[in-house]
Amino acid sequence: MVSIIMGSRSDLETMREAVDTMTEFNVPYELTVVSAHRTPDRMFAYAKGAADRGVKVIIAGAGGAAHLPGMVASLTTLPVIGVPIKSRNSIDGWDSLLSIVQMPAGVPVATVAVNGARNAGLLAVQIMAISDPALAEKVAAFKGEQEDKVRDGIASLKQQFPNKFDK
Amino acid sequence: MVSIIMGSRSDLETMREAVDTMTEFNVPYELTVVSAHRTPDRMFAYAKGAADRGVKVIIAGAGGAAHLPGMVASLTTLPVIGVPIKSRNSIDGWDSLLSIVQMPAGVPVATVAVNGARNAGLLAVQIMAISDPALAEKVAAFKGEQEDKVRDGIASLKQQFPNKFDK
Amino acid sequence: MVSIIMGSRSDLETMREAVDTMTEFNVPYELTVVSAHRTPDRMFAYAKGAADRGVKVIIAGAGGAAHLPGMVASLTTLPVIGVPIKSRNSIDGWDSLLSIVQMPAGVPVATVAVNGARNAGLLAVQIMAISDPALAEKVAAFKGEQEDKVRDGIASLKQQFPNKFDK
Amino acid sequence: MVSIIMGSRSDLETMREAVDTMTEFNVPYELTVVSAHRTPDRMFAYAKGAADRGVKVIIAGAGGAAHLPGMVASLTTLPVIGVPIKSRNSIDGWDSLLSIVQMPAGVPVATVAVNGARNAGLLAVQIMAISDPALAEKVAAFKGEQEDKVRDGIASLKQQFPNKFDK
Amino acid sequence: MVSIIMGSRSDLETMREAVDTMTEFNVPYELTVVSAHRTPDRMFAYAKGAADRGVKVIIAGAGGAAHLPGMVASLTTLPVIGVPIKSRNSIDGWDSLLSIVQMPAGVPVATVAVNGARNAGLLAVQIMAISDPALAEKVAAFKGEQEDKVRDGIASLKQQFPNKFDK
Amino acid sequence: MVSIIMGSRSDLETMREAVDTMTEFNVPYELTVVSAHRTPDRMFAYAKGAADRGVKVIIAGAGGAAHLPGMVASLTTLPVIGVPIKSRNSIDGWDSLLSIVQMPAGVPVATVAVNGARNAGLLAVQIMAISDPALAEKVAAFKGEQEDKVRDGIASLKQQFPNKFDK
Amino acid sequence: MVSIIMGSRSDLETMREAVDTMTEFNVPYELTVVSAHRTPDRMFAYAKGAADRGVKVIIAGAGGAAHLPGMVASLTTLPVIGVPIKSRNSIDGWDSLLSIVQMPAGVPVATVAVNGARNAGLLAVQIMAISDPALAEKVAAFKGEQEDKVRDGIASLKQQFPNKFDK
Amino acid sequence: MVSIIMGSRSDLETMREAVDTMTEFNVPYELTVVSAHRTPDRMFAYAKGAADRGVKVIIAGAGGAAHLPGMVASLTTLPVIGVPIKSRNSIDGWDSLLSIVQMPAGVPVATVAVNGARNAGLLAVQIMAISDPALAEKVAAFKGEQEDKVRDGIASLKQQFPNKFDK
Repeated sequence: MVSIIMGSRSDLETMREAVDTMTEFNVPYELTVVSAHRTPDRMFAYAKGAADRGVKVIIAGAGGAAHLPGMVASLTTLPVIGVPIKSRNSIDGWDSLLSIVQMPAGVPVATVAVNGARNAGLLAVQIMAISDPALAEKVAAFKGEQEDKVRDGIASLKQQFPNKFDK
Repeated sequence: MVSIIMGSRSDLETMREAVDTMTEFNVPYELTVVSAHRTPDRMFAYAKGAADRGVKVIIAGAGGAAHLPGMVASLTTLPVIGVPIKSRNSIDGWDSLLSIVQMPAGVPVATVAVNGARNAGLLAVQIMAISDPALAEKVAAFKGEQEDKVRDGIASLKQQFPNKFDK
Repeated sequence: MVSIIMGSRSDLETMREAVDTMTEFNVPYELTVVSAHRTPDRMFAYAKGAADRGVKVIIAGAGGAAHLPGMVASLTTLPVIGVPIKSRNSIDGWDSLLSIVQMPAGVPVATVAVNGARNAGLLAVQIMAISDPALAEKVAAFKGEQEDKVRDGIASLKQQFPNKFDK
Repeated sequence: MVSIIMGSRSDLETMREAVDTMTEFNVPYELTVVSAHRTPDRMFAYAKGAADRGVKVIIAGAGGAAHLPGMVASLTTLPVIGVPIKSRNSIDGWDSLLSIVQMPAGVPVATVAVNGARNAGLLAVQIMAISDPALAEKVAAFKGEQEDKVRDGIASLKQQFPNKFDK
Repeated sequence: MVSIIMGSRSDLETMREAVDTMTEFNVPYELTVVSAHRTPDRMFAYAKGAADRGVKVIIAGAGGAAHLPGMVASLTTLPVIGVPIKSRNSIDGWDSLLSIVQMPAGVPVATVAVNGARNAGLLAVQIMAISDPALAEKVAAFKGEQEDKVRDGIASLKQQFPNKFDK
Repeated sequence: MVSIIMGSRSDLETMREAVDTMTEFNVPYELTVVSAHRTPDRMFAYAKGAADRGVKVIIAGAGGAAHLPGMVASLTTLPVIGVPIKSRNSIDGWDSLLSIVQMPAGVPVATVAVNGARNAGLLAVQIMAISDPALAEKVAAFKGEQEDKVRDGIASLKQQFPNKFDK
Repeated sequence: MVSIIMGSRSDLETMREAVDTMTEFNVPYELTVVSAHRTPDRMFAYAKGAADRGVKVIIAGAGGAAHLPGMVASLTTLPVIGVPIKSRNSIDGWDSLLSIVQMPAGVPVATVAVNGARNAGLLAVQIMAISDPALAEKVAAFKGEQEDKVRDGIASLKQQFPNKFDK
Repeated sequence: MVSIIMGSRSDLETMREAVDTMTEFNVPYELTVVSAHRTPDRMFAYAKGAADRGVKVIIAGAGGAAHLPGMVASLTTLPVIGVPIKSRNSIDGWDSLLSIVQMPAGVPVATVAVNGARNAGLLAVQIMAISDPALAEKVAAFKGEQEDKVRDGIASLKQQFPNKFDK
C-alpha cells in the first residue's frame, strides 16, 4: 500500500495526480492530511505506525517551509517521497524545494520536481514494482504508451511542418 | 530560562554566541543538542516539556533543510527563535534560511540572519526583558555600550581621515 | 500593548492579519503608518517613545528595500518583529526578506515569512504570554482549535479517499 | 543489486559515501562511470540492460548540467536516485540540483541533497528493504545507532553546559 | 538544412519563432518533436542521423530539467543551439536555462535567452551564412531593416517628446 | 538638460515616470529611443555628443541583458543613471538589474530599483540641484510634500485604528 | 566636498578605493563611520547636517541588511551613492545589493556594483564635474588614461598571440 | 579564422582553453583584449572589421556586467560565442551569465557555461566544420578520443569496484 499525505487540504489539488497514478496502476493507497506544524502528534503517530499498517512507500507533499516529508522520514524506515508544492505564499517554490531536498545525512527524502505529484506517484509505483513483476510489466507498458502518445503528436505535426526523419 | 538547542554538535561553533549573550546578560539558560531528524522523539519530549521546566524562550539553530525551529514551534506555545546555519553542505545558507523563515500561518518562528546566533541571544534577552525591568535596563545599557564602541572606532579613524562632522 | 506599523498605507491589506490576531486574542494594540524613508523623523520619534507609551512588542511590515523593521529595532530596546511584504515592485519578495532578516550583530529583528502578518501577530501574542498566564492559556487553546480545524478537513476528506489510519 | 554510476571519475570522491553505505548494509552493488555526454551509447546500453543484470535501484551522481540521472530514468523502469554534485564549475550546485530534480511528468528521478551520496545510499537500502525483512531490520537498527551517536554527543556536551532536560 | 526540434508539442508555441526565421531567410528546415525523456531511442536515432540527412545546425528547445539540447549535442558533431523554455512547471525558467547552458567541457550547447527561439533561428542563419555569401548578405540586410524599424519608432516618438539629437 | 533614453519603445510605459519628474521639477529634458543592440552607431553618436548638446545627466532604461546604460557610460564623462526594466522575457528583472549594476571598475552606472524610473528622475534632479540652489529648494519642498502625503494617509487611518502616538 | 561613510570600520578595506579616487582627482572629502543600526542618532545628525557642512554628494557603503545608504537618502536632499559590501556574513552580497538598490519611489539611492567603491568614487567625481569644468576635463583625461592602460596590455599580449587587427 | 577576444587581460587565464582548442584543431585564430567599457571605439572598429579580416566566428569572454559579447554581436553579422567569466567581483557568475545570455530578439549570442572557454572553442570549431569536411572529421575523431579517455578511467576503476556490465 502507498500512503499519500499532504500538509494541508488545499494541497489536494496538486496531490490528486499521485492518487490518479495509484488508480491507473491499480495500487492500493491511503490518503489523508497530516500537518507537521498543526498536528505534530498525529504526524508522529501516523509515521510510526505506517509500516505496521502495511504501507510500503510514503508520498508527502507540502509547501513553504515544508517539514512534513523530512519529519516523516525521520520517524519511519520506509522510503519517503517528497513533493514540493508551490503554495500561495511560497517564494516561487524555492522554499518548498530546498526544505525538502536538502536533508542531512542519515535521513533521505526522495524529492521530485516542484508540484511533481504525478512523478511522485510513478516513483512509488516503480519502487513497489521491484518486488512485483506484474507491476513492473505495467510500468514497462506505461513507458511504451507514453512514447506512443508523443509519436501521435509527431504524426499530426508532420502534416504542417517538413521532416525528413519520419519518412 | 532560555533554552538553546541545535540540530548537531557541529552547530555549537556558531551557537556559542547565543550562549555568550546569556552569560553577558546573566540570563539562566540550558543548552543541548536536539536533532529533529535523528532524535525526533527526544525533540518531541524536549519541546513539549520546555514550558514546564521553566523555559520562557527557545533558541533553535539548524542547517540545510532545517526543521528543528519550526517543529519545536509546533510543539510548544513558547516563542521560538530560529538561527539558520550555513553548514558544510548548505547551499550558501539559502536552504537553512528558507526552511526556517517560511513557516505557514499558525506556527511562527522568529528568524534571525544566517549564522546570527548573537542576535538570537539578544532577541531572547529583549523578550525576557519585557517583564523584567532590571533586564530591560541592561539591554538599554548594552545599546549604549555598543554605540560607544562604534564611537571609539570613529575617533581612531579621525586621526587618519578628515571629518568636519566630529569636531 | 502591541504596536503594528507599516511602511505604506498599501501594506495594510497584508498587515490586517496582524490586527485580526490582536482582536482574536484580545490584546490591545496601536496601528499606524511609519515610513522609514518618507517620514524618518516620525519613525525616530515613534520608535524612541514606544516603550514609554506602554508598547511591549513592535510588529513592522515593509516591502522592497525594507528598512523600517531594522531601523525601529535600532531605536528601541523592545523586541521588533519584521514582516517582509511582497509589494508591487518587489523582486518576488527576496528584497524585502533579505533587507529585514540579514541584520548585523547587535540589532536583531524577529523575521517571519514573506507576507506572514498572521504569524507576526501570533509571535507577538506568544511573547506577551510569557508573563501573562491567561494569555498563555489562550495560545494553548488556539493551538488546539487549529488542530481541530485540520481534523475537520481530515474527516471530510475521509468520505472520498481510503484511509486505514483514521479508523 | 544496487547500481552506482557517476558522470565522471572525479565524482567518485563524493559518490564513495554511497559505496560505503552498500558495504555497511551488506547490499551487493556495481559501480562504474557512465558519462551521459561523453559516452551516450554506453549510457544507453547500461541503462537498458540494468534490470536484466539484476539491478533493482540505480544511484546516479552528476554535476553541472547533470543529465545522467534523468536520461537513465528515461531508459529503464527501475527507480533512479539522483545525486546533484557541486563540481568545480558548478554554480554553487544550483545547476546540478535543478537539472536533476525538475524532471517532466512521466520520468521521475528521486533527488537527494547536493552532494548527498550518503542519503542516496540509504534511500536505495530503504527501497530494497521493502521486500527484504532482514534488511528492513538493519535499517531500523541503523536508525537506533544514529540516535545513539547523537546521544553520546549530548552526554559529552552536558559536562560543559547546563541542561535540566537530560537529568 | 536547419533542424528544429523540441521536447514537447506544447513547446511549439515558443519555437514557432525559429520556424518563422527560417521562412524569412528562405533557409530549408525540418521540424519535429523529440522527447529526450519519453522517446530516448528516437532522440538517439534522430541526432545520430542528422548530419547524414543534410542537417547543418540543430536548434533544440526544452523546458524544466531540459536534457534534449545537451543530449543531442553529445550524439552529433553538428553545432547545437539550445532554447530554454519557461514551461508551466518551470521555476521561472532557471531550471531550463541552467540545464542547457552549464554543459561540461567537451560537449558545447550554444544557449540563447529563455524563450529566445527567434534568436536561435537567427544564430542558425548566421552560422549557415559563414559559407553562404548570399545568406550573409541577407543577414546584413536584416540588420539594416531592424535598425530602420527602431528609427521609425524614434520618429513617431519625436512628435511627442523633445529631442535635440534627431534634428 | 537631462537626457532620457531607453532601449525600446515599449520601455516608455515604465520610463514615463522619469519624464513626469522632469515636468514636475521644470527641468528641461530630451527623450528618445537608443537601442544598444539594434542601433549601436546611433548609441555611439548619441552618447559621445550628449555633453556638447548640453546634457548634464543621462537616464538610460533597458531590460533583459541591458547594455545601454553601461555602454553609454563608457562613451561619455557625464553621470549615467540606469533603470533595470522587468520586460516580458526578463527573468523577473534579475537579468536587467545585474547587467546594469555590476559594472567593472572605471565605468560607473548609478543604478536604481527595477522599474524605478521615478527614482531615476529624482536622482537626476538631485544631481542637477547641486549647482542650482533654486532646484535644491524644490527638492526640499518635494520631500516635505511627500511627507505630508504620508501624514494624510495616517490621519485617515486613525479613524479606523487606535493609535496613542498621533494624539 | 564628498562625504564617504560606512556602516562599520571593517568596511574601510573596501571603501578605501573611494578615498583613493578623491585623492586622485583632488576632490575634498570627509570620511567617518556612521552605523545606521548602532548609532542611529549620529546618522540622523550626520545626514541632516551634511548639506550645511558643504557636502555635495554622499557615498555610503554597508553590508548585509544595508540600511545606511537608504536612510541617509531619506534624511538629505543630496544625491546618495550606495556601495553594497560583501561582508563576512552576507549571503554572497545579495542581501546588501537588494537592501540598497530596491528603494521605494521618492527616495533614490545611486547603487554601484557589490564592493564597487572605486566606481562610487568616480560617480561622485562625475557628479561634481557637472558644474566644475576643470574637474570634467580631469574625468575626460582619466578615461583616456584608462584606455591607454588597456592598450599597453594589448601590446604586450601581441608578442604572444597572433592578431591581425592591431597591425 | 576564429577571433578570441576578452574584456580584460586577467580573463586570459580562463580564455586560454579556447586558444588551446584552436591549436589542437589547427584552426587559425587571432587573440586580443577588447574592453567594451574601457575601449569602446576599439570594440566598434574591431567588431565592424572582423568579417573583412577573414574572421568567421568570434569568441568573446567577459565577467560581471558583461557587455562585450552582446555589443560585438550587435556590430557584426558573424556568429558570436559568449563566455561568462566568474571574475573576482562577480556574484558567483550569475551577473556574467545573465548579461550574456539574455539578449533581446534580433541579436543572438551563443552562450556557453560559466568559465566554459573550452566549449566556446569547440563550438567555434563545430561551426567552422559545417563547410570544412576535413575539420568535421577531426571533430568526429575528437568525440571518439574523448570517449576513449572515459573508457580508460572506467577500466582503472574496475580494478577497485565490482561491475557486471563491463565484463
